[in-house]
Amino acid sequence: MPQRFNPMAAASSVPHRAEVEHLVRRLVYEKLGRSVPKPALAPNPLVVNISARHCHLTQEAVDALFGPGHQLQPMKWLYQEGQFAAHESVTLIGPRSRVISNLRILGPCRDLNQVELAYTDGIALGFDIPVRQSGNIDGTPGAMLMGPKGFFEMRDGIIRAAPHVHMHPDDAAFYGVKAGDFMKLKIGGDVAITLERLLVRVSPDFKLEVHIDTDEGNACGLKPTTPVTLEK
Amino acid sequence: MPQRFNPMAAASSVPHRAEVEHLVRRLVYEKLGRSVPKPALAPNPLVVNISARHCHLTQEAVDALFGPGHQLQPMKWLYQEGQFAAHESVTLIGPRSRVISNLRILGPCRDLNQVELAYTDGIALGFDIPVRQSGNIDGTPGAMLMGPKGFFEMRDGIIRAAPHVHMHPDDAAFYGVKAGDFMKLKIGGDVAITLERLLVRVSPDFKLEVHIDTDEGNACGLKPTTPVTLEK
Repeated sequence: MPQRFNPMAAASSVPHRAEVEHLVRRLVYEKLGRSVPKPALAPNPLVVNISARHCHLTQEAVDALFGPGHQLQPMKWLYQEGQFAAHESVTLIGPRSRVISNLRILGPCRDLNQVELAYTDGIALGFDIPVRQSGNIDGTPGAMLMGPKGFFEMRDGIIRAAPHVHMHPDDAAFYGVKAGDFMKLKIGGDVAITLERLLVRVSPDFKLEVHIDTDEGNACGLKPTTPVTLEK
Repeated sequence: MPQRFNPMAAASSVPHRAEVEHLVRRLVYEKLGRSVPKPALAPNPLVVNISARHCHLTQEAVDALFGPGHQLQPMKWLYQEGQFAAHESVTLIGPRSRVISNLRILGPCRDLNQVELAYTDGIALGFDIPVRQSGNIDGTPGAMLMGPKGFFEMRDGIIRAAPHVHMHPDDAAFYGVKAGDFMKLKIGGDVAITLERLLVRVSPDFKLEVHIDTDEGNACGLKPTTPVTLEK
């Protein structure tokens, strides 16, 4: 009997660079007998990632775009457990017939179709994209998606995702915040920027991770070595 | 005898929207007999403008690119007195032979050749652009410029301009800062951002104006109605 592909089993077991650094930093402070500064006391390391434009799709949309029963194939595993960038991408056709090609699909499938673009994508497409929390898509613009096997019309769901932080309840307790609060993310470097409205999202399934979009990342030239701090 | 073109005489005498608003705001507070809040007491209104990529050229470079003795023609007057976007533009050819077309020239000519690009332009061109104060170009990368009449080689001068504020000495006195200091620019809206390292530049020739680049402007979706405050 052929074995079914199991994306969870394929997920890498190598810890993230930030997790190793976080562990080593705390150990060094303890070995030296020095008091551990607050960020090093946090239950988890702070990971900041730039989300390129992407979409989340329902299985119904995947069926329409790639053929009935098609399963998204993981190409790259993301920091959040079980989430992946798929091999599959779609073409987005906006209300003014302008196009974004190779829009990456993130898997697994969800119960909602949502496209997350940057401000500059809105300029390229020629329409305003509202800043929204993921899932809050009432009254947002729609678009047509095109795949190799067909089209799928989204009535709404085109958003610019508000900069946000995914948190486990342990992280929320450490920082003293709850879901729906706003925090500050201070990003250092030559063009130091503070994001003043970082939306807090909390779930036992989440690992501590900030998501900013490409426009925000480009504004501050975020690199893996750029210092970042999360503040209430 | 033909009259020589005088760009200064052609400058518009219509006040900037921000200047009118600033005046009206103060008058309203005074008429209502209410205490005037600090920003309204400032000697000048706060204008924030997004600088698209551009270059400043010497007359020598203009001669090489557009022909001997060519004079830049003003297309649009800028907020700083006597400064203009020229009709003329050039093509920039980077060290990896990638190209930026229609790079706008700002006039009048200066005694230094300098190209100001955004972080994303550096990605498009395939090389790192250092963040620098205007004029501080030692050790920066160079490029080839191409015009309708010839080429001009820049040995250096390709920078990403540090976000900065132009100030008259009266403004510097009001805010309690001096040239070379850093201030904060708080930008409101859905994606509120604070620029933590806004470089202060002071000259009796300057009008109060913040310059940010397109990446920074796109990150916060800056519009004419976006609230902005300048803080020490």
